Amino acid sequence: MSNSLANIKLFCRECRGEYFLGDLHYRCPRCGGALSIKDLEKKDSLQVVEGRGIFRYSRHLTPDVPYTTLGEGRTPLHLIEESGRKLYFKLEYLNPSGSFKDRGAALTIAVAKGLGIKEINEDSSGNAGTAMALYARAFGIKPNIFMPVNAPENKKLLVKLFGGNLILGRDRGEANRLAIEDADKRSVYYVGHVWNPFFIQALKTVAYEVYEEGIQPDEVFVPVGSGGLYLGMYHGFKELYNMGLIGNIPRMHVVEAAGYERVYPAVHGDERYPEETSDLADGLRVPGPPRLNEVLEALGESRGNTYVVNDAEIIKALKKLYKMGLFIEPTSATVYAAYNQVRDEIEKDRIVLMPLTGSGFKALDKVMKVLLKGD
Amino acid sequence: MSNSLANIKLFCRECRGEYFLGDLHYRCPRCGGALSIKDLEKKDSLQVVEGRGIFRYSRHLTPDVPYTTLGEGRTPLHLIEESGRKLYFKLEYLNPSGSFKDRGAALTIAVAKGLGIKEINEDSSGNAGTAMALYARAFGIKPNIFMPVNAPENKKLLVKLFGGNLILGRDRGEANRLAIEDADKRSVYYVGHVWNPFFIQALKTVAYEVYEEGIQPDEVFVPVGSGGLYLGMYHGFKELYNMGLIGNIPRMHVVEAAGYERVYPAVHGDERYPEETSDLADGLRVPGPPRLNEVLEALGESRGNTYVVNDAEIIKALKKLYKMGLFIEPTSATVYAAYNQVRDEIEKDRIVLMPLTGSGFKALDKVMKVLLKGD
Repeated sequence: MSNSLANIKLFCRECRGEYFLGDLHYRCPRCGGALSIKDLEKKDSLQVVEGRGIFRYSRHLTPDVPYTTLGEGRTPLHLIEESGRKLYFKLEYLNPSGSFKDRGAALTIAVAKGLGIKEINEDSSGNAGTAMALYARAFGIKPNIFMPVNAPENKKLLVKLFGGNLILGRDRGEANRLAIEDADKRSVYYVGHVWNPFFIQALKTVAYEVYEEGIQPDEVFVPVGSGGLYLGMYHGFKELYNMGLIGNIPRMHVVEAAGYERVYPAVHGDERYPEETSDLADGLRVPGPPRLNEVLEALGESRGNTYVVNDAEIIKALKKLYKMGLFIEPTSATVYAAYNQVRDEIEKDRIVLMPLTGSGFKALDKVMKVLLKGD
Repeated sequence: MSNSLANIKLFCRECRGEYFLGDLHYRCPRCGGALSIKDLEKKDSLQVVEGRGIFRYSRHLTPDVPYTTLGEGRTPLHLIEESGRKLYFKLEYLNPSGSFKDRGAALTIAVAKGLGIKEINEDSSGNAGTAMALYARAFGIKPNIFMPVNAPENKKLLVKLFGGNLILGRDRGEANRLAIEDADKRSVYYVGHVWNPFFIQALKTVAYEVYEEGIQPDEVFVPVGSGGLYLGMYHGFKELYNMGLIGNIPRMHVVEAAGYERVYPAVHGDERYPEETSDLADGLRVPGPPRLNEVLEALGESRGNTYVVNDAEIIKALKKLYKMGLFIEPTSATVYAAYNQVRDEIEKDRIVLMPLTGSGFKALDKVMKVLLKGD
């Protein structure tokens, strides 16, 4: 086990408790809050080192880890000019297992590997589980992946193809309970991505890459389930701002799927969005994200808005994105659906950034139903 | 129509006939030979321009085209150290539609767009057809894609999802005939990728990217169906050599699938390889590649060898590659299967490069059959 790694300090935002990474707590043992990484040494500039994938930025992530890359990151930044506006789509669906979760899995597994871990438990509604299985197996760690029985068939299949040990729960909640109980009982490292601060840490690299391409977005639309991508990108842009590399932190907008709103009601109070439950945005079905307060803080600081989109809007957005040649899963169309709700209010010189999170390959059945019904 | 584009000269290697691109011949009207692009102005160095995807290299491809990119190229170069040797895998399966064919489709469609073409015909056993459908549709050209009825279901489905007009022939040969006859009859531009010199031209970018990462391979293993990737990479390395940027042209090895050998018998004469027909390498089933002589020339000049691999070898290679976390279709494992035939003869300090051509997503059924049967 790497000592410098085991001695990394984690802290709880709620009760300010502090713990060593080597203690392997997945959340605060005192109050149950989510844990964060104590700030790394501040940097004055973006430091890119040799090493592939997200580990090019290892100095800004967690320096002393092995580089467990499978080629994640450096995804294309695709420009579409539409009604006089510049929209940049970050094609995160071109990651190794077909989603941005590969970045998070890469760092999570690097940390586990550095700690000498041999077996991990992860629970997921789909993409994170497949990513974690792929990376764990490739680097000699046994992955136990707990998923709800109603997860998309393809995603369950991928876990098995990647050599993961798939365990099914009745629903997302049970998958979560089983993963934690089993980890407790057998002293397995629980890496659950909605809790894991390294998973989020890795997602800062999306912001770094956009900066390295010379693009400084003004408005960023991010799909929010547990909020990992949102928080990661926010922290990435904030660091770039603190280093003096960009003039302002972009407005970070939260996009949620109808029926799974957590941020919207927290901001708007009693003012409820029309009742409806999205079937298409299965990637955003996260019950009770543990970092809701952190998301609300980032939303306030960046002056972002919150959007809720329904299936009719997702279908419209998905069809348009396919016509542009962007081969995504329906969940990923939520950001463009949200953009379409407000685009006339966005000034023409504003630069808009939207990550497109997951590959159409992952949900061919759903994509087919939407696209092959005719226009 | 761009005049400078229409005036590009094509020539026939067999009879030396010369034609304008604007005449839209897909092959030599005199002798039926494949057409090549008359050399572009020679460059002293690798010139990278603004513009995304493969169009960063447009000066070395075809300068005066619109940049019809969907984020192809700049794929990861993944290093595996194995028995003291450095193997670099170029992860071409992380292209927009899941294969290296996206590079070829991007330039083919750019040329068509520049010529003012409104409709194209393409015939394909799978990946090239999906790539061509994706790019054509995204840039406002109607794609008619002719495929054999026994092409993988997923690949047929993808053509439809990307907005292609799918026409099925009894077999690969009939798909080809129908595509050409229909193009003739209705004056549609036939872009058939096994003939199209721009398709091959675009594949030089694989070599450029490897060079830009600072890697100079000694041994390159390339899967050969029609030979497009092989020829493209060869010409890319040759240009780099002629510019003085690399010390030698790497040895370019041809890898064919059992039952579909064309290059192997042409080199070894009567000495036949054991009779067997690969089911797994469906991407290499190309009847009568029109550029066989060009492949043989490149093979001789680069002092490459020819390898034939069978399904048992492909299965073994595929399993190993999945354990490394490389999520490919079975066809793509052929190069690693060939490498395994000779690795003990390759000196340890030689740098080996293998492009991994297509995504596992494209052939989940086949991958499943191989991997989930147990070891």
